[in-house]
Amino acid sequence: MKLVLILILNSVLGLAFEGQVIKKEFVLPSFKTVNGEIISPVKIGYENYGKLNADKSNVILVTHYFSGTSHAAGKYKETDLAPGYWDAIIGPGKALDTDKYFIISSDTLVNLTPYDPNTITTGPASINPKTKKKYGMSFPVVSVRDFVEVQRALLDSLDIKKLYAVVGASGGAAQAMEWAAAYPDDVAKVISVIGPGLALHPYTIALLNIWSAPIQLDPKWKGGKYEKNDQPLAGIAESLKLITWSCTSFEWAAELAKVSPPPLKSPLSSHEQLTAIEAAMNKRASDRAKNVDANSLLYMAKAMENFNMEEGAQKIKAEVLFVPAEKDLLFPPSLSESAAKKLCSLGKSAEVSVMKTDGGHLDGITKISEASKVMSQFLERKIGSGKGCK
Amino acid sequence: MKLVLILILNSVLGLAFEGQVIKKEFVLPSFKTVNGEIISPVKIGYENYGKLNADKSNVILVTHYFSGTSHAAGKYKETDLAPGYWDAIIGPGKALDTDKYFIISSDTLVNLTPYDPNTITTGPASINPKTKKKYGMSFPVVSVRDFVEVQRALLDSLDIKKLYAVVGASGGAAQAMEWAAAYPDDVAKVISVIGPGLALHPYTIALLNIWSAPIQLDPKWKGGKYEKNDQPLAGIAESLKLITWSCTSFEWAAELAKVSPPPLKSPLSSHEQLTAIEAAMNKRASDRAKNVDANSLLYMAKAMENFNMEEGAQKIKAEVLFVPAEKDLLFPPSLSESAAKKLCSLGKSAEVSVMKTDGGHLDGITKISEASKVMSQFLERKIGSGKGCK
Repeated sequence: MKLVLILILNSVLGLAFEGQVIKKEFVLPSFKTVNGEIISPVKIGYENYGKLNADKSNVILVTHYFSGTSHAAGKYKETDLAPGYWDAIIGPGKALDTDKYFIISSDTLVNLTPYDPNTITTGPASINPKTKKKYGMSFPVVSVRDFVEVQRALLDSLDIKKLYAVVGASGGAAQAMEWAAAYPDDVAKVISVIGPGLALHPYTIALLNIWSAPIQLDPKWKGGKYEKNDQPLAGIAESLKLITWSCTSFEWAAELAKVSPPPLKSPLSSHEQLTAIEAAMNKRASDRAKNVDANSLLYMAKAMENFNMEEGAQKIKAEVLFVPAEKDLLFPPSLSESAAKKLCSLGKSAEVSVMKTDGGHLDGITKISEASKVMSQFLERKIGSGKGCK
Repeated sequence: MKLVLILILNSVLGLAFEGQVIKKEFVLPSFKTVNGEIISPVKIGYENYGKLNADKSNVILVTHYFSGTSHAAGKYKETDLAPGYWDAIIGPGKALDTDKYFIISSDTLVNLTPYDPNTITTGPASINPKTKKKYGMSFPVVSVRDFVEVQRALLDSLDIKKLYAVVGASGGAAQAMEWAAAYPDDVAKVISVIGPGLALHPYTIALLNIWSAPIQLDPKWKGGKYEKNDQPLAGIAESLKLITWSCTSFEWAAELAKVSPPPLKSPLSSHEQLTAIEAAMNKRASDRAKNVDANSLLYMAKAMENFNMEEGAQKIKAEVLFVPAEKDLLFPPSLSESAAKKLCSLGKSAEVSVMKTDGGHLDGITKISEASKVMSQFLERKIGSGKGCK
């Protein structure tokens, strides 16, 4: 009763509440990309949940997906409409058990939503200290490996050398795999949720190229030289609509069409009169567009397109669990299965557990609790006891 | 020997050769759309192969796909690089056997390639006789049913009342189904190759909306008021790239990436440096863009999005064969299977034969010979002897 009163009071006053999450900033004065270009400074945000143990052996790094941020669990304010994206599996007694693990969730470079007050990132929307202007398309091209190196620097700053696990969804899964190849002796386990496998497939590379196209066609893009308050919103919205389409499924769309308001007139009455699903998809996309920086989307797509560790795979020592979603059309389960097969053929430990859900790629976020048990078991299993490759 | 000499001579002189195909024009002085709008005149092209029998009972209508034309078989000139798109199954002794059937292949309204000298169509690129200017976006919105009604008028002009079969791929399959619902007593058989089933699925409606977006974002589109020689080519190319992507598969892209020239520099070296698959997809798309009219693509997408005969299905009397392609991501086999199930539940005759190919939707064109036998057997089977629904 007393606790409840305190929490209500704190909420009203905007003070800390139980389980409150705080976004922290990590600053690296200077960072050299894989390509040899210098970005100075680099700032990224991170959050942490749970407690670091004495020998620092309980650290799990969570890496985020294409349009995500490091806000993986909990709330910043009690009044937040929703908690972090993986709140269903991060917390006391959950798969990523904060009673056992110290979980760090890290932002990446070139985050899509730099104008969101809770995002801390460095990318094309950042000010270049040399010119005092926005980098725009003069920002260096970065890669998933660069994301990893910045995270490494973040962990170094916290004096953390070893990761019990790296866990990520989609683009975050790419980072997790890259971590295991970049620092094989420092990563014990990897969970690739709805991940691309060991490299972006050419079919998906082509799609990411197509994701970027609407922005570049929008005259307001201006080769990337738009003002912050005069963004190519139409292009961004079309990109986001295509991204949502790519990340969902036939079943998802059928459901959305069913619950969306029917068109006022026949969609054949004019070009402007849309069907229910079109109107619903447009609304979602334009609502989200406001938070996205156009150039950042292009940079993130470029980074993901070039994720390729077919060679790096040989270095991996971590045990790997792949958790694809059955109806995923972006990274279908077959990609995880062939990646596991490859790792097994290289003498590594890899296994696949398919989420039996029907919403497509997004289920790796929205229905992640379906994978809770398999992720928990994989994490709790003693290192080296895996029977990954049968 | 004599024949060969004549053919060579004819070829040199540009005269007729054996099996030469001639595009014909059908003119309808005035046409009223389903929406009640008048288009005057309407012209469409058609081709025919084989001979009409005495009682006119051997007619097969072939209806074309989204970006296709009525050029389904044979060549116009001996020097043509390729024959019509379904030449593998149309001809003497082939599935659509010209020794038995009289095959008419018809253009539709709003064909995508009105500037191709071999396309005859009426659409937004046509001149509105009232204004003496291009219709542009003032052309009436048309539907698949309108395509069918124009074809009906064409057949009436040839004094053909009954169709032994209507056969089409993809958008052509939608027309074939619509024919069977519109004129149930006049259509004995339907083959829906890589078709949408009985209606465009909301997931695919959303995709067709997205196909249209790049054109509308291109500043050269100008709300449809571009000049013929100043088209929004960048937007068209992006639309076509996405269409090709939608109509292929992971396996197709892997193959294309393998045979495409590798990038000169690392794709991470700059935003302009593309991966092999991106460069290959861009080249294909921009090569094709020249032949496409931007507004026509929007009209065709609108027509297809609104294909829906969930109700019309009850009227069908034709026996229906669905031939989906196994790796089709646009209209997966499950759509054909549920359509067949629905028809069977309504007491109709429907069956499904899946093409075991790996290229995706396009296989319904490029690998159609795989379905040759099943199509031939279905067509040769006596009407009413089908065991469609088991």
